[in-house]
Parts: sequence; structure tokens; C-alpha cells
Amino acid sequence: GSGRLGVVYTEDNTPNAQETYLDHRFRLTVNGVTETDGGVKFEGRIRWQADDSSDNGAGATGGAGAAGFAVSTGGFRVDVGHVSDVFDSGDVVSWGGNGVGYTGFLDQAANFEGFRKQGFGNGAADAQTIKGLYSISDFTVNASYTLNDRDIAGDDDSWQIGAGYNFGAHRIGAMYGDNGDAHASAGSQWAIGADGSFGDFSYTALVGDNDVTSDAGGDIMVGLSGAYAVSAAGTVTGFVSTGGASSNDTSYGIGYAHSLGGGVSLAAGVGSNSGGNTQADAGVTFSF
Amino acid sequence: GSGRLGVVYTEDNTPNAQETYLDHRFRLTVNGVTETDGGVKFEGRIRWQADDSSDNGAGATGGAGAAGFAVSTGGFRVDVGHVSDVFDSGDVVSWGGNGVGYTGFLDQAANFEGFRKQGFGNGAADAQTIKGLYSISDFTVNASYTLNDRDIAGDDDSWQIGAGYNFGAHRIGAMYGDNGDAHASAGSQWAIGADGSFGDFSYTALVGDNDVTSDAGGDIMVGLSGAYAVSAAGTVTGFVSTGGASSNDTSYGIGYAHSLGGGVSLAAGVGSNSGGNTQADAGVTFSF
Amino acid sequence: GSGRLGVVYTEDNTPNAQETYLDHRFRLTVNGVTETDGGVKFEGRIRWQADDSSDNGAGATGGAGAAGFAVSTGGFRVDVGHVSDVFDSGDVVSWGGNGVGYTGFLDQAANFEGFRKQGFGNGAADAQTIKGLYSISDFTVNASYTLNDRDIAGDDDSWQIGAGYNFGAHRIGAMYGDNGDAHASAGSQWAIGADGSFGDFSYTALVGDNDVTSDAGGDIMVGLSGAYAVSAAGTVTGFVSTGGASSNDTSYGIGYAHSLGGGVSLAAGVGSNSGGNTQADAGVTFSF
Repeated sequence: GSGRLGVVYTEDNTPNAQETYLDHRFRLTVNGVTETDGGVKFEGRIRWQADDSSDNGAGATGGAGAAGFAVSTGGFRVDVGHVSDVFDSGDVVSWGGNGVGYTGFLDQAANFEGFRKQGFGNGAADAQTIKGLYSISDFTVNASYTLNDRDIAGDDDSWQIGAGYNFGAHRIGAMYGDNGDAHASAGSQWAIGADGSFGDFSYTALVGDNDVTSDAGGDIMVGLSGAYAVSAAGTVTGFVSTGGASSNDTSYGIGYAHSLGGGVSLAAGVGSNSGGNTQADAGVTFSF
Repeated sequence: GSGRLGVVYTEDNTPNAQETYLDHRFRLTVNGVTETDGGVKFEGRIRWQADDSSDNGAGATGGAGAAGFAVSTGGFRVDVGHVSDVFDSGDVVSWGGNGVGYTGFLDQAANFEGFRKQGFGNGAADAQTIKGLYSISDFTVNASYTLNDRDIAGDDDSWQIGAGYNFGAHRIGAMYGDNGDAHASAGSQWAIGADGSFGDFSYTALVGDNDVTSDAGGDIMVGLSGAYAVSAAGTVTGFVSTGGASSNDTSYGIGYAHSLGGGVSLAAGVGSNSGGNTQADAGVTFSF
Repeated sequence: GSGRLGVVYTEDNTPNAQETYLDHRFRLTVNGVTETDGGVKFEGRIRWQADDSSDNGAGATGGAGAAGFAVSTGGFRVDVGHVSDVFDSGDVVSWGGNGVGYTGFLDQAANFEGFRKQGFGNGAADAQTIKGLYSISDFTVNASYTLNDRDIAGDDDSWQIGAGYNFGAHRIGAMYGDNGDAHASAGSQWAIGADGSFGDFSYTALVGDNDVTSDAGGDIMVGLSGAYAVSAAGTVTGFVSTGGASSNDTSYGIGYAHSLGGGVSLAAGVGSNSGGNTQADAGVTFSF
């Protein structure tokens, strides 16, 4: 599980009506794992999550989310249920890269609007996903299918495929997907990315586009992020993300994180989002 | 905890409106156990469960179910709260026997309609149950009382008693109960059963009847099931269940399960239910 | 976690409409703890709880409650989120002292009406609390601030401060707080207390008052409790609590608890509450 605790600032924050508020999150993930005599691993997992609530209160944890399952052996892995699809998985492309702040409130995907990504979390999943992954040597391919959400009229299923290649400390990957007509993110979407490191410096890059109706006329989106280890415990991160809807500003931000050992880190960040508003946070994260 | 994952087929499956669908279940049971210096064991337990949902999605786990408690010492055991009554407990009679398929979708009790059985699960219990069990040598007696459900007008409490006897690899048992007038399964109910094994072959048998109003004119119900270990890891199971309401067909089915070790089993089954519809499944179960 | 199980009697018990009923509770608290290299401890916790329900049933556990966090190092400790404030914490004053019965149904604070106390539990918290504690040698000071509950119109925040001093086996403490105008317990509140032990006998004392509108004209409240270890395993407890609203009777009660080892205790108690009604219980508690 993990926890985080801090103060978050969002300029003109209408949904919460408070620009500055006390944030916290407590996550508990229960993993059930077993392995056959032949070395095939079976996993199931559920997650609970408690957050601060918008009225200054501490929200109830509520029920655990829907269950995700995985079967893996050698380079094969199949995920079924409430699980990540190709775009969400990070199997071949790092989507967000290096975010800033202890909550990672902004990252290189800040301007990447209208993509359909479904992952494992603490709520119910509207539709089950099946994802297959195969890795051989430095090459990885994956594919996912999200079942038709029968709560929505019309076709809502989604296909996604991806491929990636590692060479030394660097990786490149590409993903493509097509979403059913009934979904808010209907239409096709693609993204290519690269990430890697040179000594104490690491980088990620992401380029993508989609033709979803909710993002009519949106440009290609481009994001870059970097992290530099300034000391054994301290890391400076920064990103820039641009493109998307024509009204978008370029997003950018910078942050600093300091490890205290034992899975505890202090972090803070400040940035500007695609709406041109300033965001900032400072707090602590810990895992257990 | 345990998990299962597979594909389920039910002919003319109206509630779900899909004849074939992807099924999954994740169960997590937390048991709190402690023992006094005098050797009396106290247990409490709650369960979470996440299932696939009827709209193709993955349903949220939701809250844990109501709590069950047990106090045991020597041959005595008392269960209180959200716990099994005599008919559900299997203390003296195996109710379902050997089911077929990885979900056990049908078993020897498939035609046994209108019985009142309450057990431990993941939801709230409408009424608390108190069950006492006493075993001495090969003889076992038990009795349960389910409190009046005060959400229902009128009397809804239930008394049940049972007795069983082991001789070597075989066991016989009988159960009788009487349910309050306000319950949908009002009236008396009885069942007798036998189970045991001859080497690699094991069997169960169940005969029962009730005079519940919802089952007016129903015949005596009879069920038989058997399992045969065809190899160290593989088992074939089969059952037949007949009787009950006059419109009932005889239910029957056959299945195969193969253990992969580590608590993981592949299983599949096919059968015909009391409505005359074909059901089948194939999938994997694992425990952790 | 912990469990309890027993029978509870409350004379003229209108909310439940049953004077005597079967009571049970199952609690599971998950604590996530980690420590930095510098020795600073970070904790997060959530709780599940299942109780009997008023209709004779066993209530579902429901979701876990909101999360509480703590950061501590040396004599400093800060709690944030769904956590106890000064009055609830027991840091400097024991509020209830020695309750009677296995449920602790009455204690020395039985007549202490109208105090605002917020603690960690299994539900959602209306407002987050921040509490700081500092202990040096035998002296302890603490202060808490409960954020304005933005679900309520008007100001609803609360400040509380406390101080305590230990001398040998005895302790004295004082607490003061002021609650926002919009809260049902608006206005100021104070309490002073003492507790300690002489050999096999231990005592607690509590005096307090508040000017909350819901308790207009209420007197100063006074409570006393004591416990005597009659044997290695058995303890007799008693309390008296008086004052508060002018219509109040004096509350009093006596109980006996017997430890069976392994965290299991049998206990029973009988008393009279501030409404003049008799209450009693008998049951078992266990922790695991």
C-alpha cells in the first residue's frame, strides 16, 4: 500500500471551490498470487483507496474496486478483468514520464486530450479488458480488447495494439487503437514514445494524435520530460507538453523530490496547465 | 482468498441477456483467530467478493459482508452472526456433492427447490443465526436457530436440527427444519444424505422434501453425484438431480477438473438444468 | 483487529425497539507503517467494522472508513486526516475511565453531554483534523484544529489545546476547546482529569463543562471510576457520573471482567444511565 499527505494549490479551481486545500490519499492493494508446478503464475488483486473530500473532510474508503487478474509464464502475460489496456499499461511507452510534485499533478501528457485509456484502480470498471503481452529478448508486443460496455447504447468496444524495442538504456515504442462509435472518445488514436537515461539524467518523449469527436480540430500533441539526480537522494524533474485543442496553452512544470529512505519522499512542484492556470503542491509520499 | 476466471454459457439466459460471457470472481476472507489459555478458540471473519457484472464490466468489490463468529473447544463448536445454518453447513450431509465445471454451476441439489439455507458470504445477513455442533467419536449432532428477521412482518425465525454418523470412509446424515410463516420458504423441510469413497471413486446421495408454499405439489427430490480420479491430477465428476416441481426436467451434467499444483485447477463442465436448458463453462480457479 | 459477542439489555430502548438483543462487532484495522533512515515514522490506517443490525440481522461491514495519518519522531507526533482531536485522544486526560460491561456501555463520562470530540473510526469524517503532540520528560502538550466542515453553512472549525503532567503512577491533565458557531456543539468547553493507581487499585476522575446551546443551563459534570484487580485474571470496575442537563439522573454502574488469556475476556456489567434506565450486558471480547 501507499500513502500521501500534503498541500495542493490550483489557481481558479472551480470543481473544488478551494484553491488551496489539504490533500491526502491512502491506498491498500491486496494481491493474491499462486504458481502452478509448471511455473505459471496466477494473480488476482483488488484495491481500496481513501482520499480527502472536497468539503475539507476525509472521505470514506468505500468498497474495494473491481478485481483484476493476470496469468503469466515466461515472456507471456495475460491480464483480464479490471486491468490496464495498452495505452494505460506503460508496457511499451511511458505515458506521463516524469511528473512534478508529490501528487504528480502535471506531466508530459498534460495536453494529451481525448485518449481512451483504462486501467486498474479502486472503482468499478464499466467494461472488462483483456490484454496480452509477449516479450522476447529486447522486443515487446501487446494487444488489448475492452469489451462492449452494455450500459451504453451502441458499440463501445476498443482494440489497442503496441510494440516496443529496448536497446541498452533506451527504449522506443508505438501504440495504436480504435474505439467504438458509442464512446465519448470514439475514433482512432496513436502515440509513439521514447525513454531512457544518460548517467544521472533520464528523459521521456511522447507524440500522439486522435480523431475523437470531443477534440475536433485538435493538433498533434507533443510532450517531453526529464529528470536529473542532483544528489544521492534528490531529483529535479521538469516537463513540457503542447498541442491538443486550439484553445490550449502549452503546459510546463518543474519539481523536486527528496528521498528520506524507507520508502518515504518529500516532494514539491509548480507548473502551468493547458488552461494557463498555475498549479503547485508540496507534501510527502510513503509506501509500506 | 480465491479467484476464478473463465467463460460461462447458459442457454436462454434471460437475466444476463448474454448466453456466453466472461466470468470472474475474486474472494478475500479475513479470519481473526485467537485462543484462550484453556484452549477455547475464538474466531471472527468477514469476506469481500468482486464479480464480473452483467453489462460486461467488472463489478466493484463493495464492502465486506456481515461478520461471522465461532467459539470452539474439543468437540463443541458454536457459530453466531452471519453463519451457516444446519442445512447450509455440510456438517452432517453434503448438500451439493460433486458439482460440474469450474464454477460448480450445477450439482446434485440442482432440482432441490424451496429449501431454506443460510450461510456465510459477502453480503449483509437479514437475520443472525446461532448454530451449535457437538462431535463425539463418529457421531455428530447440530442445531441452529435463525432469529426472526424484523424487517419482515410476522414470524420468520427458523429451527433446524441434524445428526450424522461416520463409519470408515462413509457417512450418513439427516436434517430437519421448520421455518416461520412469514418466510417465502415457510413450512417444514427434511433431507437425508450419504457420502463416501471406494478407492479412487467417491459418491454423494441426497433425498429431501419440503412443503413450502412456493413449491406446492412438489415431489420428493433425489440427487446423486460421483467423482472418479482418472489420474494423479485429473478428476471426472457427474451428477443427476430429479424431482421437485411437476414442471421440472431432470438435471444432469458431467465435468472434468485438472490440478496444476499450487492451488490452481483447470476445469470445464456441461449439463442440463431443471428448465431443460444447456449450461457449460470452462475456466481456471486458484486459491492463495 | 478485534471482535465481541454477547447479549445487551437496555430498559425502554426505543431506537432499537428491542430491550434485549444479540450484539456483535468485528473490527479490522489496517496500519501501514514505514520509517525514514533518520527515524521519522510515517503511518496510515483505515478501519472496517461489522455490527449486528437493529432488525436482528448481521449488518454488512461496508466500506472502510476514512484514512488517518501520523508522522512521529522523538517526542513529537502529528496526526492528520480522520484522526482524534485533543478531547478524544486521551493524550492528557482519560475521558471514559473504566467502563462497565464487555461493551463498556456506560462510563464516567456518561453524563458529559454536549462535548465536541472527533476520533478515528470506520465512517467518513466530515472534516479533517490536524493534531500535534509534544512530550518532554513527564510533561505533555497537544493542540488540534478541525477544519471547517464545508457541508455546513457558516463556520464550523474547532480549536482544542491540552496539557498533562505525570508524577510516578499518577497523571493530571487539562483540556480547553472552542467550536465554531455553526456546529451543534458551538461554544467553549473544558475538562480536567486525573488518573493513576495504588497497587491493585486504579482510579480516574473527570470534571468538565461547556456552554453549548444544546445544553443550556447544564451544570458542571463530574465523573469518577475505579478498578480493582481481585485476582490475577479478574477485575471489578465501577463508576459514577453526575451533572449535565437539569433533568439528568446520576449515572452509575458496576462490572466484572475475567481474562481467559490469548486476548480473550469474559465481562458483564449492570448500570443506570442519565435517563434513569437500567442497562446491562454480558459477553466476550477478543483481539487478534
